[in-house]
Amino acid sequence: MANYKNTNKTSQKKTNNNLYSKVNTAKKQTARKPKSKKVVKEAPKSPLKIIPLGGLEEIGKNCTVFEYENEIIVVDCGLAFPDDEMLGIDIVIPDLTYLKNNKEKIKGIFITHGHEDHIGAVPYLLKEIDAPVYSRALTLGLIEGKLDEHGISSAKLVEKKPGDKVKCGKFEVEFIHVNHSIPDAVAFAIKTPVGTILMTGDFKFDSTPINGEMIDIARISELGNSGVLALLSDSTNAERPGITLSEKTVGASFANLFKSAKNDRIIVATFSSNIHRMQQIIDEAIKCGRKVAVSGRSMTNVVEVATRLGYLSIPQGVLIDIKSINSYSPHQLVIITTGSQGEPMSALHRMAQNQHKNVTITPNDTIIISASPIPGNEKTVSNVVNGLMKLGANVIYEKMYDVHVSGHACKEELKIMLAMAKPKFFIPVHGEQKQLAHHKELARQVGLKEKNILLSENGKVIEITKNSIAQKETVHSGRVLVDGYGVGDVGSIVLRDRKHLAEDGIIIPVMTIDSATGEVVSGPDIVSRGFVYVRESEELMNDIKETVYDSIDKLYNNEVYDWVAIKTRIRDDLSRFLYERTRRSPMILPIIMEI
Amino acid sequence: MANYKNTNKTSQKKTNNNLYSKVNTAKKQTARKPKSKKVVKEAPKSPLKIIPLGGLEEIGKNCTVFEYENEIIVVDCGLAFPDDEMLGIDIVIPDLTYLKNNKEKIKGIFITHGHEDHIGAVPYLLKEIDAPVYSRALTLGLIEGKLDEHGISSAKLVEKKPGDKVKCGKFEVEFIHVNHSIPDAVAFAIKTPVGTILMTGDFKFDSTPINGEMIDIARISELGNSGVLALLSDSTNAERPGITLSEKTVGASFANLFKSAKNDRIIVATFSSNIHRMQQIIDEAIKCGRKVAVSGRSMTNVVEVATRLGYLSIPQGVLIDIKSINSYSPHQLVIITTGSQGEPMSALHRMAQNQHKNVTITPNDTIIISASPIPGNEKTVSNVVNGLMKLGANVIYEKMYDVHVSGHACKEELKIMLAMAKPKFFIPVHGEQKQLAHHKELARQVGLKEKNILLSENGKVIEITKNSIAQKETVHSGRVLVDGYGVGDVGSIVLRDRKHLAEDGIIIPVMTIDSATGEVVSGPDIVSRGFVYVRESEELMNDIKETVYDSIDKLYNNEVYDWVAIKTRIRDDLSRFLYERTRRSPMILPIIMEI
Repeated sequence: MANYKNTNKTSQKKTNNNLYSKVNTAKKQTARKPKSKKVVKEAPKSPLKIIPLGGLEEIGKNCTVFEYENEIIVVDCGLAFPDDEMLGIDIVIPDLTYLKNNKEKIKGIFITHGHEDHIGAVPYLLKEIDAPVYSRALTLGLIEGKLDEHGISSAKLVEKKPGDKVKCGKFEVEFIHVNHSIPDAVAFAIKTPVGTILMTGDFKFDSTPINGEMIDIARISELGNSGVLALLSDSTNAERPGITLSEKTVGASFANLFKSAKNDRIIVATFSSNIHRMQQIIDEAIKCGRKVAVSGRSMTNVVEVATRLGYLSIPQGVLIDIKSINSYSPHQLVIITTGSQGEPMSALHRMAQNQHKNVTITPNDTIIISASPIPGNEKTVSNVVNGLMKLGANVIYEKMYDVHVSGHACKEELKIMLAMAKPKFFIPVHGEQKQLAHHKELARQVGLKEKNILLSENGKVIEITKNSIAQKETVHSGRVLVDGYGVGDVGSIVLRDRKHLAEDGIIIPVMTIDSATGEVVSGPDIVSRGFVYVRESEELMNDIKETVYDSIDKLYNNEVYDWVAIKTRIRDDLSRFLYERTRRSPMILPIIMEI
Repeated sequence: MANYKNTNKTSQKKTNNNLYSKVNTAKKQTARKPKSKKVVKEAPKSPLKIIPLGGLEEIGKNCTVFEYENEIIVVDCGLAFPDDEMLGIDIVIPDLTYLKNNKEKIKGIFITHGHEDHIGAVPYLLKEIDAPVYSRALTLGLIEGKLDEHGISSAKLVEKKPGDKVKCGKFEVEFIHVNHSIPDAVAFAIKTPVGTILMTGDFKFDSTPINGEMIDIARISELGNSGVLALLSDSTNAERPGITLSEKTVGASFANLFKSAKNDRIIVATFSSNIHRMQQIIDEAIKCGRKVAVSGRSMTNVVEVATRLGYLSIPQGVLIDIKSINSYSPHQLVIITTGSQGEPMSALHRMAQNQHKNVTITPNDTIIISASPIPGNEKTVSNVVNGLMKLGANVIYEKMYDVHVSGHACKEELKIMLAMAKPKFFIPVHGEQKQLAHHKELARQVGLKEKNILLSENGKVIEITKNSIAQKETVHSGRVLVDGYGVGDVGSIVLRDRKHLAEDGIIIPVMTIDSATGEVVSGPDIVSRGFVYVRESEELMNDIKETVYDSIDKLYNNEVYDWVAIKTRIRDDLSRFLYERTRRSPMILPIIMEI
């Protein structure tokens, strides 16, 4: 089992009562100002290197390397989900070659929060390098589950709390509380020999969070006043105007919807990691005298971890097994489920297809999809909504009511972060090109000089001194595709083949040749898959065979018996024939056996 | 060439000057009220059959059959675009078996407007049946282009204008002008022996259309007052509150954006069929003294057809060849292009990839994407925006400015349509389950009785008499997949194979057996595609070979020489081995040759 130090839970909880208690604590920690100035005066020769290995010009697989002389710390190590082109791929992780090649330099891994795009590649990293992982309790609890799945037992997981500072070689990393759509999210103030770097992680401003305090604006402002050399800030919502609403607003919507659902069974789909959302659903269920059942593997896992670590509070007797829901009337039930993105194997998807083992949808169901479709998932969500409605359910989705808020800061919040941190240099992170560019524009509006804002790329080494920022050499980076147990064994050639097979299928002309005489002693036979429905295309299949015979005849008439030549000729002739006849280009894979 | 009667163009244009001129014309045509009552009194025995062959519970492939005794008319015959599951499929058309089997009954085909989801399957229908196609000039022009591509020269295309009535057996079809995102859109009032059916086609209310008149509310209201038995109305935007803005609002945005683009080259991506949008772009270009170039095949085609038929007015000297743009400065140019949906082969996509033959994107480009992503295309549009921004361009997209309006009526307009038509029965059409259900809810709000609203399905026969509406038997319907020249030869088995191949690739164990002795005389060899990168997976490939050897050995030891048994055993053993080793399930296709 991972060595997981779960300490200080009680003291942390105590300070949660007063929203502003943090301000005082923070003030106590500011006596270092003169010292920090002294560091600046030392004018170190070496620059700080910041190397994003993921998270720039993309959504996901966030991973950033901070390197000073011969020491490295890593912030986050997440995964990305495959895009439509990555056929058969399960997940995408950052190429970690640079870290492998510099493993002796790595002093620590710091994780901002427990979302997959920040922790999903940690097991793959820990298979390659040995360094302690620092984070807050829930994040470590979620990482621990992943390490168990990967059979990693030797990891050193170290719990830290907001305000804690971790000395890691020449780095000192301070944990700063922020709001996000999962508890225990932090930003990092990384004190380095050239100055302080503020890395926000994912964040928003929530003045009425469900459990805990508002983002620690006092500490961030204080750091800003002391001098932040560079800010790396979350760009996810940099295209969206205004501010992101408080998680609490969702609770009010639930209250109304639960009331109007009356005698219906209520099913709420949301992200399993959004524990505050889950808490609000459970609280409302209790108010309405309903029991709560949970459906979906990841949801069940998170409920277990969050309850054990004290992040989810469920009174005895409220939670019931999904298998026992038929012992209750619809109005006595709330089911919390996975599948808010319409994922094909998820519980909600199975309900919509009328294939869920325990839940059968009827017109007595009110279903709330408490999430926005992640870009690219709009169609799958739509399909699920259609399926549920077809079964007669009342479905609340998209923007029909305020049943979802984002976990990321919008434009006005991003500007406040910039204004508080007052960084000399700014590097927008966590976003596609368009979000990074919009975030850059916001920084300009706040008053940063264009030359002090850097739109960078994964793998580019950013060198920062106290007076300069510049892009230097490029290190090995990119994406590694994970397919089943295979990490990186599916590359562009294999994907290209999969795409080709997917588009038009495969035709395999196969024959056996006598090596002594060159004579075809068996075949050619034609085997095909994914091309046409063979039983209804006999004529075409016969013509394909004829074409192959013709190719061989012509070669033999010219006394060509070379395998490679035969294969090439068959492929070319058949390819031309098929395109003219069908306007398709299946993969053609001639196989010649020799006896 | 199609027999295409392009008449009455001049007289039509004349009436376009006065928005309300239509009202007067319409009034003249109402003297039939008593006559229509007389028809109702005749109380016909036979019910009217309405059979949707496409467009219900889906977006696209709209096609509706109206059948009375032994006569049929067809309204629209469109295509749908394949969803993500339909690998390699080009387009989807309705299953037209029912029409094939009743070809002698078909008296006419009526087309509401020229969008692909209403005309795209017309060539496939005309290959099966012979009936005149009635529509307005632009629609026929676009259909004609399709027929040419399909080599159909015998079609009878008959141009009609708003107000025209076509007698077709016991049906009489009246053309009624509506607003939409393509010129020449109409609704049909279909007079039948049981009563009048109003089929809206796609529509919106635009009180300030670019060219032509507002939707003919006078005529629709009049029909409503005379008694509409059933309304079939467009549900596309039934989820959206409020009303759809006028096309003219987009022009104002263009004016502002063109002004602020100053010395930039301007590139506008939009739907090629949105001729009014194109006209507004061209008008604004002329005002700014810019030349206009067109990029993309479908855009070039539509400009040609629309200009020839008088729907697009471009003064001499404005249009320049895309190949000659380099003779002009950026501020002298507007390029109108395809690719507003980020389609992989489109002109805008190629520009974003820096692969367009004539257009190289630079920071001197202002690019306006004048369209909303169609659900499912969000990601591809995003990719294009990222690519263009990466090249330094200023990109206006999504809701940043009002550069797009929908062509479909929103909730308030749909309610107005219902209120004007005052139908006895209502069948929401053109929409997925969720849109149809929302449209039903709107009808209830307007006062229709729940039992008089029918949510139907493709293929279900709806029988209507003057007092009743009911779903009866089901006719053959569904979707036919078109892949290259192949129509319907890719079915569910082929698609399942393509999906399997796409996910994990294929492994082909191949061997030659001596039929006399049963001995393996060549192989087994292992060929694979789309599974792993073979060169870096030598050990795995050897183990696969070993597994196949083992399977054969075991069978031979038990004296099993049967081909089918050998193939099955190899497939089972290898499948199990690969799943345990790699957690993947490639297609395994053993091939045994015999000499």
